[in-house]
Amino acid sequence: MVVGAGALARPSEPRPELAWGAWGDPANAVDLPESILAPLRDGLGVTRPSPRPPALAEFPLPPAALRPELVDRLAGLVGTEHADSGRAARLRHLRGKSTPDLLRLRAADAAGTPDVVLCPADHDEVAALLELCSAERIAVVPFGGGTSVVGGLEPEAAGFAGVAALDLRRMDALRELDEVSRLAVVGPGLTGPQAEALLGARGYTIGHFPQSYEYVTLGGAAATRSSGQSSAGYGRFDDLVMALRVATPTGMLELGRAPKSAAGPDLRQLMLGSEGTLGVITELAVRVRPVPDQRVYEGWRLPSFSAGTQALRRLVQDGPVPTTLRLSDEAETAVDLARAGELGQAPAGGCLAIVGYEGTHEDVALRREGAAAALRDGGGERAEADAGEAWLRGRFRGPYLRDALLDAGALVETLETATFWSSLERLHGATAAALHEALSAQGSPPVVLCHISHVYPAGASLYYTVVCAALEDPVVQWRRAKAATAEAILAAGGTISHHHAVGRDHRPWYEREIGGLGVAALRAVKAELDPAGILNPGILLAR
Amino acid sequence: MVVGAGALARPSEPRPELAWGAWGDPANAVDLPESILAPLRDGLGVTRPSPRPPALAEFPLPPAALRPELVDRLAGLVGTEHADSGRAARLRHLRGKSTPDLLRLRAADAAGTPDVVLCPADHDEVAALLELCSAERIAVVPFGGGTSVVGGLEPEAAGFAGVAALDLRRMDALRELDEVSRLAVVGPGLTGPQAEALLGARGYTIGHFPQSYEYVTLGGAAATRSSGQSSAGYGRFDDLVMALRVATPTGMLELGRAPKSAAGPDLRQLMLGSEGTLGVITELAVRVRPVPDQRVYEGWRLPSFSAGTQALRRLVQDGPVPTTLRLSDEAETAVDLARAGELGQAPAGGCLAIVGYEGTHEDVALRREGAAAALRDGGGERAEADAGEAWLRGRFRGPYLRDALLDAGALVETLETATFWSSLERLHGATAAALHEALSAQGSPPVVLCHISHVYPAGASLYYTVVCAALEDPVVQWRRAKAATAEAILAAGGTISHHHAVGRDHRPWYEREIGGLGVAALRAVKAELDPAGILNPGILLAR
Repeated sequence: MVVGAGALARPSEPRPELAWGAWGDPANAVDLPESILAPLRDGLGVTRPSPRPPALAEFPLPPAALRPELVDRLAGLVGTEHADSGRAARLRHLRGKSTPDLLRLRAADAAGTPDVVLCPADHDEVAALLELCSAERIAVVPFGGGTSVVGGLEPEAAGFAGVAALDLRRMDALRELDEVSRLAVVGPGLTGPQAEALLGARGYTIGHFPQSYEYVTLGGAAATRSSGQSSAGYGRFDDLVMALRVATPTGMLELGRAPKSAAGPDLRQLMLGSEGTLGVITELAVRVRPVPDQRVYEGWRLPSFSAGTQALRRLVQDGPVPTTLRLSDEAETAVDLARAGELGQAPAGGCLAIVGYEGTHEDVALRREGAAAALRDGGGERAEADAGEAWLRGRFRGPYLRDALLDAGALVETLETATFWSSLERLHGATAAALHEALSAQGSPPVVLCHISHVYPAGASLYYTVVCAALEDPVVQWRRAKAATAEAILAAGGTISHHHAVGRDHRPWYEREIGGLGVAALRAVKAELDPAGILNPGILLAR
Repeated sequence: MVVGAGALARPSEPRPELAWGAWGDPANAVDLPESILAPLRDGLGVTRPSPRPPALAEFPLPPAALRPELVDRLAGLVGTEHADSGRAARLRHLRGKSTPDLLRLRAADAAGTPDVVLCPADHDEVAALLELCSAERIAVVPFGGGTSVVGGLEPEAAGFAGVAALDLRRMDALRELDEVSRLAVVGPGLTGPQAEALLGARGYTIGHFPQSYEYVTLGGAAATRSSGQSSAGYGRFDDLVMALRVATPTGMLELGRAPKSAAGPDLRQLMLGSEGTLGVITELAVRVRPVPDQRVYEGWRLPSFSAGTQALRRLVQDGPVPTTLRLSDEAETAVDLARAGELGQAPAGGCLAIVGYEGTHEDVALRREGAAAALRDGGGERAEADAGEAWLRGRFRGPYLRDALLDAGALVETLETATFWSSLERLHGATAAALHEALSAQGSPPVVLCHISHVYPAGASLYYTVVCAALEDPVVQWRRAKAATAEAILAAGGTISHHHAVGRDHRPWYEREIGGLGVAALRAVKAELDPAGILNPGILLAR
């Protein structure tokens, strides 16, 4: 990777701010129709609307813990205009976008508000900030798009001099485009749409489209092992990262001289998924592909979740592999159908799969023909003509819908896991059962929807959406359900997260997943790279 | 993975021993014809034949350092019949199969002979041995097939009570075959042919065919990030490993609940490539595929290495991707042609590519047609009809040829590296130039042959074969050349090893490749898992 300040290009416009206390762009806010409100009310007992959080100007702002003298010294490293300890900046860097995060804002809970927001310009400024914060025991929260749904932005900062959010938005350059190797060298603060715009103008795409696409940053996607909806074709984000530069309190790591190497353990894989606890990714080389000539998305209806699972498995094991491959279970399909029903279409049984192809016309045609034959073999038939395109149009709308559901008084959240194919149906049942039991036991029986969201030759991931009536303390209500479900996932052999990461929310189960010795190994690395423990304390590993 | 002693199947026959002081099965030994001897003599000045090492019974055997009382206690853990401190066992576990290793045997150098060879039956016995060795400061060399070519089996054992070779040959079960997930759970001591026989009988293959295939073990392939000749289709070995059980002096690690996860750093990737320095792999789950219906191997002639490199890159970036894809440079092509010439065929210019397809008839036909069109576009034309099959027949013969060349008085060795496509031709030239210069400066101008051995969308590996006249001390001669070449590789941006690993031979350059902080991070992990430092001391990292 190129060391230095050069940039091939930068985003032409400043990126949009995430809404305060809700997801996304307020222009995209969703109003729930009576056809959704009625079953929420009548079926789930959702009756108590929940007000949005207090406005930014009225939200209770805790006093800053960090001494002004330290704020000044930090500001001296990045320039005064890039060190902001004002109300808006501090509150906009308070936690992430999980449902508990949003509910706590609705409850005017300001715990964990950082004292200052620092926006460094480059690797050297990050390094200097980490050095100072390490010397002065200031906790540092590396901040990308602010889209964490696992408590990845809420450090355990007791005993520190204060908390600085390290917002990487200014490190948003497309540094280099290596068209021969098909690699883009980028800054960590570039968002998904910014990266696609800069690369698209040059004929390339990364192809990373998680549900958080509008706000996700590439550094954040790397640090949390994000996976996009087209991972079958483009790969998970961690598979796309070929090289990394990382700033730590004790120095710099530069990793990745070749796509693959036998020179020891793959240290890139130690930084990917480290969630800002071992260092700050300041530059990354990411695989790119030519912008596809064609994108075709189809719906397929499979007779059952079991039959559909087999059909997806066959495709990913024997090919041809579509670019996007998802399968809703019966419950999720029924809810999707209910929505389609509003549009005047007749509901039908079975399970809906979304199958997308992106590439050259010839490649799309070939894979589409082969996959169609395999899907038909598995009992599938083409769904209504618009099903694939409708999914494509709505694929980033889930989080907007969540805000509207929360407004209505529902508790709605998602969670996800993964395992090998032979255990997938067992995991599917066990996870759903745990959610049903844990929420019903509290008096709020849920609707539990699930889809296979990502596929591999050896296994797949399951993505759940849960909706029930919010009780008086929905944060506690959800924490109980989540804990019971995490136990069930662990017992059924699943991983505690396939693409959301660990954060604080998954930590107890993560520590059991990798075992005491795995935790000890990571702690040893952390002690070496971050001896003062300033980097995202309490995230991933207990303090 | 299944914990316990169950086995679905075990190899039906004991595995063959590697020849003493040479490679492989003596039945496959090569005699050099005058058509090879003449140019060696006349072109390279190879005139002093080198005798084979002293016979096993006459080789100088150093006294064992390990106190008999400790040997007895170790034997008590595995059974007396599985703890062998006899001459043959000890010498057969002396170092690996690099050219310096073989030359040192020829010079009757017994330095580093282990004191005892332990053959544990299962994970628990490995764990018990590591505990005792840790308490008594006995260095442990995990030993798979004994095929290391990077000094990976020669610990720096000064200050230890002695050295035990931990031979994993008894841990050779096919534990489980998960046909749904297409995973085989295997013991680490299973060799390539043993694994293929057990799986082939059930309709599956791993598809891992490194040049050391006849003797490589699966545990060793994992610990060293081996890559087989069909990696384009089947994947590198580290990409095939989905789960691992590892014994360390401080406990067990069980890693891998899904193909991919966002639950923290991928700790599997910390163990893969750790070369026995962090733990001993006692079980692994490896991806398998159905035995292909068809295997087709073809030769293609490209106008130049540059044109061929572009053609290979196009195939791996845009598809269709063959199962095997290799490209010899002009020098290697000319030497291969010289051999083909003996068979009555006319030499021709350009560069020879080997392109193989394995799969169903339909899949092979489709990929073959598409790849042929792309190769023709790149200026390629089909080589003589037998070229691909001839390569396939001879692909494991290189190391046998090496013994014959050493006998004749040549110095012959291989090395390899990898980088991104945009740097590949520069790396190709720089590495070859360094070899030429460093050997010519010592008075032994070499022949340097190279091929692209493994390809990825973002880059590829280069595999070099070097032949020159052996000087009076060929070990020193080679070390000098290797050091100069390693410097050139590092300067040109290559990795110090794409699939041979680090061992002791690559250590100084490896440490520079990952940097001081990378070394510190690995040392911290080692201190945690192996506090007494008994596991392969001096391998990968300096003591």
